[in-house]
Amino acid sequence: MTGRGARPAPRLYVTERLLADEPVELGAEIAHRLHHVLRLAPGAAVVLFNGADGAWRARLDAVDKRRCRLTPIAQLAVRPVPAPDGGDALALLFAPLKRQPLDWLVEKATELGVTEFKPVVTARTIAERVRIDRLETIAVQAAEQCERLTVPRVHLPAPLGRVLDGWPADRRIWLCAERGAVRPIAAAARAAPGLGAPGLGAAAAAVLVGPEGGFTDAELDLLKRLPFVEPVGLGPRVLRAETAAIAALACRQALAGDWSPAGREHRPPDRA
Amino acid sequence: MTGRGARPAPRLYVTERLLADEPVELGAEIAHRLHHVLRLAPGAAVVLFNGADGAWRARLDAVDKRRCRLTPIAQLAVRPVPAPDGGDALALLFAPLKRQPLDWLVEKATELGVTEFKPVVTARTIAERVRIDRLETIAVQAAEQCERLTVPRVHLPAPLGRVLDGWPADRRIWLCAERGAVRPIAAAARAAPGLGAPGLGAAAAAVLVGPEGGFTDAELDLLKRLPFVEPVGLGPRVLRAETAAIAALACRQALAGDWSPAGREHRPPDRA
Repeated sequence: MTGRGARPAPRLYVTERLLADEPVELGAEIAHRLHHVLRLAPGAAVVLFNGADGAWRARLDAVDKRRCRLTPIAQLAVRPVPAPDGGDALALLFAPLKRQPLDWLVEKATELGVTEFKPVVTARTIAERVRIDRLETIAVQAAEQCERLTVPRVHLPAPLGRVLDGWPADRRIWLCAERGAVRPIAAAARAAPGLGAPGLGAAAAAVLVGPEGGFTDAELDLLKRLPFVEPVGLGPRVLRAETAAIAALACRQALAGDWSPAGREHRPPDRA
Repeated sequence: MTGRGARPAPRLYVTERLLADEPVELGAEIAHRLHHVLRLAPGAAVVLFNGADGAWRARLDAVDKRRCRLTPIAQLAVRPVPAPDGGDALALLFAPLKRQPLDWLVEKATELGVTEFKPVVTARTIAERVRIDRLETIAVQAAEQCERLTVPRVHLPAPLGRVLDGWPADRRIWLCAERGAVRPIAAAARAAPGLGAPGLGAAAAAVLVGPEGGFTDAELDLLKRLPFVEPVGLGPRVLRAETAAIAALACRQALAGDWSPAGREHRPPDRA
């Protein structure tokens, strides 16, 4: 939903530093996209971002099959890039899913502002290896499309217990729960300051969703003993894992994240 | 995310009436699923629902390649089925999308409780015909999986203007907006009684999302003149149409739908 008729300048994520009038040379992958996919000719306008230097209006100077050169011209007015562990940090802890649901979970969660993807291995996790490089590519493309200035980090899978052992006690985790009497997610967001361990902020710093088979009772017992883990209810229907994750992330952003009124000041000027 | 280890009895949507000890004969499609996909033998337990008679524990009496017979044994304790136009009514108005995003939009929106899918044709709608039968199949399978008792209705595509002309003035439509100063969705939900035309309830009765290319200015002018249409903000990032729709539906259910505290009394006993 670009909200525009005219096609906007394509946005490209690069790892190079971006400075005014300092050309960047890029390789075959981006050259192919510019030349064959987007059919851009020298002189075309693109937007470059690297997660550190903001977004830049750039000019395509030269492009062929194997390489291309672009020159950043002017930095665009956009919201400041949050520090990796800044107030906007939002992690998604998820048990690896089958390929297709996992692909779109990463795409949608990137659009919704997730900054870190942490695959957690649980007792009932489907024994399927996680293609980190594939998920990174999906996250980059989604970040380019949704006009983010940062690309979320995709971590290697780790056992749930180890991730929880190393979790900072002041960062609340919303556990997408389903069974039992669980506080609905909207009520949890409203009551957040009064919940959990002292010092926990209102905004959940992470959303945790289990595998299709659910968590084991032992895993649920472990989770319920942790003061920074708060089960949140997502209604009467049985949601697929990826649906629960996206729904919880949307509610978090709407109620306590950068969609909330307090978050509006961070919006870029073009839609403040 | 079933929240269980043991595989639950498969849920089947049927169009037949369901009465205790009144066997229902079903055709090749369901017979194939039971026999070859689920590998069930006579005596196996299944759950049947038809959108009118609640959910029934049933026994598979006989099955072969071409037909099967099941007998409803006992009605399960579940929340009452809302009337088609009852308080739980929630329509998704959407400009038809490409096949894959549309397929999962229908699956996820069904999990989130949408009761009506209304494709609307806009100026920038991708000229691709909507496979109503395909979407109905996806909605049925999602309803079976998420333990709904009803299957959402998929309407034929209609021009946006005609849908709005016939829209009841007391049913609020949340317009997934993106550009301009728009009230964030959480603030819209909180302030709802004071907004729009007199008599509009707090809960949006529909979510409207535009095509990838966005609405035209003329369409936006029309929408803004309608008192029952309320643009809602979904944060600083540019969301794809299907992402915006799912995010808005999740927020609606969490803030004013059947995920909210008031909605908990309607939960089935097994997870009340």
